Amino acid sequence: MNIKICLIGKGIVGTSLLQLLNEKKQLFKQKFNLKITVNSIFESDGALINEKGIDLKEILDVGDDFRNLPYWRRDVKAIDLISKLDVDICIETTPTNPKTGEPGLSHIIEALNNHIDVISSNKGPFYLEYKKIKNLAEQNNCYVKYEATVASCVPSLRIKEDLIGNEILSIKAILNGTSNFILSRMTAEGVDFPLALKEAQELGYAESDPTLDIEGYDAAGKLVILANELLGWSKHIKDVKVEGISKITSHAIELAKPDGFVIKPLAIAENNELSVEPRLIDKYSPLNISGNLNVVELETKYAGPIILMGRGAGGFEAASAIINDLIDITRKKGYSP
Amino acid sequence: MNIKICLIGKGIVGTSLLQLLNEKKQLFKQKFNLKITVNSIFESDGALINEKGIDLKEILDVGDDFRNLPYWRRDVKAIDLISKLDVDICIETTPTNPKTGEPGLSHIIEALNNHIDVISSNKGPFYLEYKKIKNLAEQNNCYVKYEATVASCVPSLRIKEDLIGNEILSIKAILNGTSNFILSRMTAEGVDFPLALKEAQELGYAESDPTLDIEGYDAAGKLVILANELLGWSKHIKDVKVEGISKITSHAIELAKPDGFVIKPLAIAENNELSVEPRLIDKYSPLNISGNLNVVELETKYAGPIILMGRGAGGFEAASAIINDLIDITRKKGYSP
Repeated sequence: MNIKICLIGKGIVGTSLLQLLNEKKQLFKQKFNLKITVNSIFESDGALINEKGIDLKEILDVGDDFRNLPYWRRDVKAIDLISKLDVDICIETTPTNPKTGEPGLSHIIEALNNHIDVISSNKGPFYLEYKKIKNLAEQNNCYVKYEATVASCVPSLRIKEDLIGNEILSIKAILNGTSNFILSRMTAEGVDFPLALKEAQELGYAESDPTLDIEGYDAAGKLVILANELLGWSKHIKDVKVEGISKITSHAIELAKPDGFVIKPLAIAENNELSVEPRLIDKYSPLNISGNLNVVELETKYAGPIILMGRGAGGFEAASAIINDLIDITRKKGYSP
Repeated sequence: MNIKICLIGKGIVGTSLLQLLNEKKQLFKQKFNLKITVNSIFESDGALINEKGIDLKEILDVGDDFRNLPYWRRDVKAIDLISKLDVDICIETTPTNPKTGEPGLSHIIEALNNHIDVISSNKGPFYLEYKKIKNLAEQNNCYVKYEATVASCVPSLRIKEDLIGNEILSIKAILNGTSNFILSRMTAEGVDFPLALKEAQELGYAESDPTLDIEGYDAAGKLVILANELLGWSKHIKDVKVEGISKITSHAIELAKPDGFVIKPLAIAENNELSVEPRLIDKYSPLNISGNLNVVELETKYAGPIILMGRGAGGFEAASAIINDLIDITRKKGYSP
């Protein structure tokens, strides 16, 4: 089966995905009976378009010079061309405006309206318009998958299927690696917040504008998706009570230590409420992870807590989650064994 | 769709399963379009048989007095009747002889030879005859599922599907709660092995004959299944290098502490080799879980370590894993949405 892909966004995730698609060509063919044809790659200022299939090796070889390729078309926009291209799956990896979910939200809606399945690593559209996107997918008989939006390749959304004979009651999680890294450093070294933040920025764990991470907004968005997916809720990011970590002092951390507690940036979904805030946890809790890992603890009805952890970010991490989603869609459609 | 079940073994797992099947009757019907009919329940000395379907509530109400029910048939054996009953799925939960895998192994073979799908919480047959069982299932076009055999309801086998776009390279795990509990107590309290073992026995975490747990054989069996499933190997429990924890002294544990290490009963699959033995690990490693939890750390090609943890034993834990497998089979057969 030949699957035609439109990739929107050629950043770290998009480029890592192209590399994986190129690397796994044989595997797709032999194991999954799939030929993956990328026929369009959109950037904000134009697109690479080749209806017969873009040569992935060529794209990877030219790196940032892709705009000099003969099939680069300047100034065309995904939103105008999605309906005109022959596409089976649209993969959305653009950076999002956290208030509007754009441009990803419009891309997703346009794809679904044209009966094109969607895979997204872009969380904005889902914490803002979860219900609308799900309804639209259902109306158009399309799949929409977004495993990479929460804890990257850690299967925190798919695990719902793995626990279908159980029942998930509530969620506690650490979903922002930057906040967790900063509090971990403050705990281990006794340094204050500004210094720990500076260190995180120097190591590339925090953005130059770290607001979304340290004020809890990034984690809140992921928590909405997790709760809607695993607990069947229909929440919006506005429903999350959010408090960041910037007011935590090394003094507060020291005060917690003698009683065996640490302060962690916890995201919690229970009793129909969502919150992201610094909380005391037992230092022996599995939630006491250090560094920039993510962790998701699911309280289940029949087996107590079940915990998942792993890296919450990274190009190949997200790209491999996108490939999981891709194979899942082709299996559900009966194209792959 | 009416699914006819034969349950072999009415111990803690079997009884918990009957309770879940009874509790989830409505859910099965509404969400999965399934009516589950248990038409036979085998014990070592006879069976409850009612081709029209056993009343689960009655069975649960009578408790241990089930042998007085009118449809109890003394001295009949599962191995003789599997082929004669009208069964879709055979659920095997008997205690195993760890050297022969019996009686479970024969039950599984007989079911598959009669084109009956199999779900097992019984690991013996799989660490002894993994390849044979898988081949037989394939030849007979049957499903054989055994999520409960490793870390109970923690989806340590199913996660392979969740990571299909990634690649699992190696495994480190703690698969025996008893050994882990004993070493945790020795580490926390400074007590020696015999005292920690006695405590585990008093709390019901260790059997009166704890050999299989503390000598590593139980964990070795689970490791074989995990490695065969996730890494595509074809190993036998004889291939595992096994060393128990009974020679670990509190002195050895104290020696490790100043350098930040703890001793854990690790099960490792890497470089085509399997081992279960006490190993030093960093006290900040996610593998440093305490108590009777299980943990599985998968080293992946594209996302580094991905870690799963949860309770490794318990009746409802295993029963909910069996129900996962049951729904998975009915979905794969196209009976359930």
